[in-house]
Amino acid sequence: MDASSFHPPERTLMGPGPSDVHPRIREAMARPTIGHLDPVFVGMMEEVKDLLRYAFRTENQLTFPVSAPGSAGMEMCFVNLVEPGDKVIVCKNGVFGTRMQENVERIGATPIPVEDDWGAPVDTAKAARALEEHPEAKILAFVHAETSTGAASDAAELCRLAREHKCLTIVDTVTSLGGIPVEVDEWGADAVYSGTQKCLSCVPGLSPVSFGPRAVETVKNRDAPVQSWFLDLNLVLGYWSGEGGKQRTYHHTAPINPLYGLHEALVILHEEGLEAAWARHRQMHEALKAGIEAMGLGFFVTPEARLPQLNAVTIPAGVDEAAVRARLLEQYNLEIGAGLGPMAGKIWRIGLMGHSANPTNVLNCLGALEAVLADMGAEITTGRAVSAAMAQLGQ
Amino acid sequence: MDASSFHPPERTLMGPGPSDVHPRIREAMARPTIGHLDPVFVGMMEEVKDLLRYAFRTENQLTFPVSAPGSAGMEMCFVNLVEPGDKVIVCKNGVFGTRMQENVERIGATPIPVEDDWGAPVDTAKAARALEEHPEAKILAFVHAETSTGAASDAAELCRLAREHKCLTIVDTVTSLGGIPVEVDEWGADAVYSGTQKCLSCVPGLSPVSFGPRAVETVKNRDAPVQSWFLDLNLVLGYWSGEGGKQRTYHHTAPINPLYGLHEALVILHEEGLEAAWARHRQMHEALKAGIEAMGLGFFVTPEARLPQLNAVTIPAGVDEAAVRARLLEQYNLEIGAGLGPMAGKIWRIGLMGHSANPTNVLNCLGALEAVLADMGAEITTGRAVSAAMAQLGQ
Repeated sequence: MDASSFHPPERTLMGPGPSDVHPRIREAMARPTIGHLDPVFVGMMEEVKDLLRYAFRTENQLTFPVSAPGSAGMEMCFVNLVEPGDKVIVCKNGVFGTRMQENVERIGATPIPVEDDWGAPVDTAKAARALEEHPEAKILAFVHAETSTGAASDAAELCRLAREHKCLTIVDTVTSLGGIPVEVDEWGADAVYSGTQKCLSCVPGLSPVSFGPRAVETVKNRDAPVQSWFLDLNLVLGYWSGEGGKQRTYHHTAPINPLYGLHEALVILHEEGLEAAWARHRQMHEALKAGIEAMGLGFFVTPEARLPQLNAVTIPAGVDEAAVRARLLEQYNLEIGAGLGPMAGKIWRIGLMGHSANPTNVLNCLGALEAVLADMGAEITTGRAVSAAMAQLGQ
Repeated sequence: MDASSFHPPERTLMGPGPSDVHPRIREAMARPTIGHLDPVFVGMMEEVKDLLRYAFRTENQLTFPVSAPGSAGMEMCFVNLVEPGDKVIVCKNGVFGTRMQENVERIGATPIPVEDDWGAPVDTAKAARALEEHPEAKILAFVHAETSTGAASDAAELCRLAREHKCLTIVDTVTSLGGIPVEVDEWGADAVYSGTQKCLSCVPGLSPVSFGPRAVETVKNRDAPVQSWFLDLNLVLGYWSGEGGKQRTYHHTAPINPLYGLHEALVILHEEGLEAAWARHRQMHEALKAGIEAMGLGFFVTPEARLPQLNAVTIPAGVDEAAVRARLLEQYNLEIGAGLGPMAGKIWRIGLMGHSANPTNVLNCLGALEAVLADMGAEITTGRAVSAAMAQLGQ
């Protein structure tokens, strides 16, 4: 075996995540590793929790990063709140709603699916009907920002409906956190999870979560033990809390350096300010949109439901979409995303997340996409995209 | 909120993990993030798998790092191989055997505990008796190197006994991998998991695992679905394998930069050579032992079962052990570990793992420990520890 150090190329990451990682975050990842019970590390953990409360707009005490990717954050919410035999209304309009349903089934609980077309937001009227028809349902689960389609759903209204029917909510904010308003307390969401590699622009591997008082109460009053040892909130609590002089209990060894990275990512977000970050994502989306439309390409999601940070662009007829992505990667070091499942071959997913949401990326992406499409003989309008985006950017 | 960048102190990590992270690994963590489906990243993943096979001494195809800490690697082994109603013989001689039993219980299976004193190795005669008394048992699970006590068990013999009784094995090699021989194929172990933050000297957060053909067959022929979506090998397989031209399926977003770190850690191990790494751990242990004994302190574990990489040192009578550790940390930037559970207040755990197993660390640790203990009035022999260690090191 001839093994030598790995030196990745420098890519521009405009797919569905990971997004471009800010150099400050990469630098933070390389800082000296200290012990996970070191008082200095424990102090940093408290700051991470405070900063996550800022990002989630919540006062929830139980707000912390799970030591694993977003899909483990999802699983933490489900295995702690759902017990065998429970009924859970699951809104499905893409990959991640489907994954929620699988989580429910693996617990031995009963999912009640509310289905919408991929690319459409969750229909709140359908959700309301399901809540009425299933008064015994314990939880309403939905995805705020569907990464597989680029559609945003009305989280405030869905949480309101759930509360009206005495249902708890589990909300996927993986792609929304830091990119569009996530208002955990204002919504009254009970359990939310997110990821680090989207609009927080950190490396993948951690999943910020937040649990409100009703969720905590539910976990504490379970009949059955939580089926996962690693994700059992009752155990994790002893590690991540320890407020009021209580001793921090060893649970698992926290991923020290990735947490340095998340801390730095959240400090950067706090410096910019949440509102400014939301405005920047919106502004970059408008510029990208101007360029995409100037090329004669369209968007898959209706304007009202369109996520600024994840743009589902329809692929022009007759174009080998995989070849386009391969050329963008090889010739321009630019990554954009393919469609998943039924969206494969129909859309590209162009991410403008976190540090990736900047004018240079928008202009480079439009220029590269236009050049590759033109070269491959696609029927697009050339020569207008970049200037349209620049006009939108006020440049 | 006043949030600013976090700058950790530089510590010497000689506790039970994390160990000192090699500067090359920290540097690797800061390299540019690329996409988790990028062909260049996929190529690196294949190298990580090859390097892990080297470290585990196995040809097992299904060898890869779980995207979460060692306790998730443990849970992956249990939730995939154990089904509700199964009987699992669990050898318990410390914290991690106890955690194995909790895993079995949470699956709805029946643990058959084989108990040994903390600090003692697993008694193979007791394990043999349990296998005879419970011919219906499906799995024998044990910890090769108990991190909570510093005791090594006879993995080869335990695996042999299990095979003789048609039992599968689950083996915890968290603290052994890279420090003492782990011979997955020679043992015929069916499922092993490890951690990155011990003798691989990488940052915490990933769990290398390896599954042999009998284990894979068992997972494929399950009756019940695996209770965890995140840890279901049937799904993870599609992501980490994809050999033979099969397309890699999206499962979760891999922790890109931590995997750069693991790759570099494994390259470093391969450069040194496994046998050389084992010899170095042994040699550093001998030096530390000479110094510890010259001070008049003793070891908790009998010489035959003693792990070179994790030294359980008995605390001299009348000493406030927490104060000693606090002073080592504050005055010498040196971290050593406390005892866990019944070992609390009885032992310190001094790690010599991976990059931490070097002469400078051994001498610094002995010098600092002697100075602090002498200053606190402990009854130790002074002035001999460092020279005894140096003599052992041939310096």
